[in-house]
Amino acid sequence: MTYDEETGRHEGAAACLASLEARGQTLGTAESLTAGLVAATFATVPGASNVLRGGIAAYAVDVKTDVLGADPDVIARHGVYSRECAVAMAVAARATLRCDWSVATTGVAGPDPDDGHPAGEVHVAVAGPDAVVASRRLDLAGTRQQIRTGSVDAVIGLLHETLRAHDGR
Amino acid sequence: MTYDEETGRHEGAAACLASLEARGQTLGTAESLTAGLVAATFATVPGASNVLRGGIAAYAVDVKTDVLGADPDVIARHGVYSRECAVAMAVAARATLRCDWSVATTGVAGPDPDDGHPAGEVHVAVAGPDAVVASRRLDLAGTRQQIRTGSVDAVIGLLHETLRAHDGR
Repeated sequence: MTYDEETGRHEGAAACLASLEARGQTLGTAESLTAGLVAATFATVPGASNVLRGGIAAYAVDVKTDVLGADPDVIARHGVYSRECAVAMAVAARATLRCDWSVATTGVAGPDPDDGHPAGEVHVAVAGPDAVVASRRLDLAGTRQQIRTGSVDAVIGLLHETLRAHDGR
Repeated sequence: MTYDEETGRHEGAAACLASLEARGQTLGTAESLTAGLVAATFATVPGASNVLRGGIAAYAVDVKTDVLGADPDVIARHGVYSRECAVAMAVAARATLRCDWSVATTGVAGPDPDDGHPAGEVHVAVAGPDAVVASRRLDLAGTRQQIRTGSVDAVIGLLHETLRAHDGR
């Protein structure tokens, strides 16, 4: 998972897109704290448009529910800074963006805590065909920018692992 | 309009957000070739969530029409690489994301031309209250990444200019 500052190329993103293209499957993103950086990272790979359908940066809560389509009951029960919200966002992205696989991020970029959650508490999720769902909690340190790029790396890593585990799909 | 690699901070983005926050107005994004990088750039500014509602990275044409809500007739008539498409995307973003102001990007990131349009042909647009619309055509040189970051700078610059020109809104 190396990232080249000059070209913006991210080896993990390139590997995921190559795997998805070989399967004839597509990808979409749902992002809160990363606000578009995951989609933009995938888009740095030439030919990304064969796989990447698009993404929704859902910063406001009602954009998460009304535009992305994340289940408002899940958010009401667990809050936006939760594994459950990340999974709900990923599941909604598959339906709204009509893609086979999706990735989602939610968490606190900082510098201050929010709603009782510390800066660096991040939840990432992946959803795929046949009800495949994976999620991970991260506790990141650093600046706002470091927490964001750490979240991008983590969700791309989780997609990469999940794709390898479900090679036949 | 300087960009700090370390923090990701973009002075133009910070100035736009400060101006919008002072007016009590909100912002959304609609992105094709930049694929989330405009939204992510605004989000690097601490407190961005007071203004930035979210964004739609609309890579596939049907995501531009069905998720973002851009007028399919405009795209059929002018193509996705057009000033008209950029304006249609910005106008749709205001409605779909329920924000006061919006910015949009569309164009060819390259390295190859697409559909008769050269790499670096980019159209950016801004939409605001009272039917304010501004747009600009760019002819950028460089790598995919340079064309993308040039597009981000240009659309943030266009928003900044448009906000200054409509200071009372």
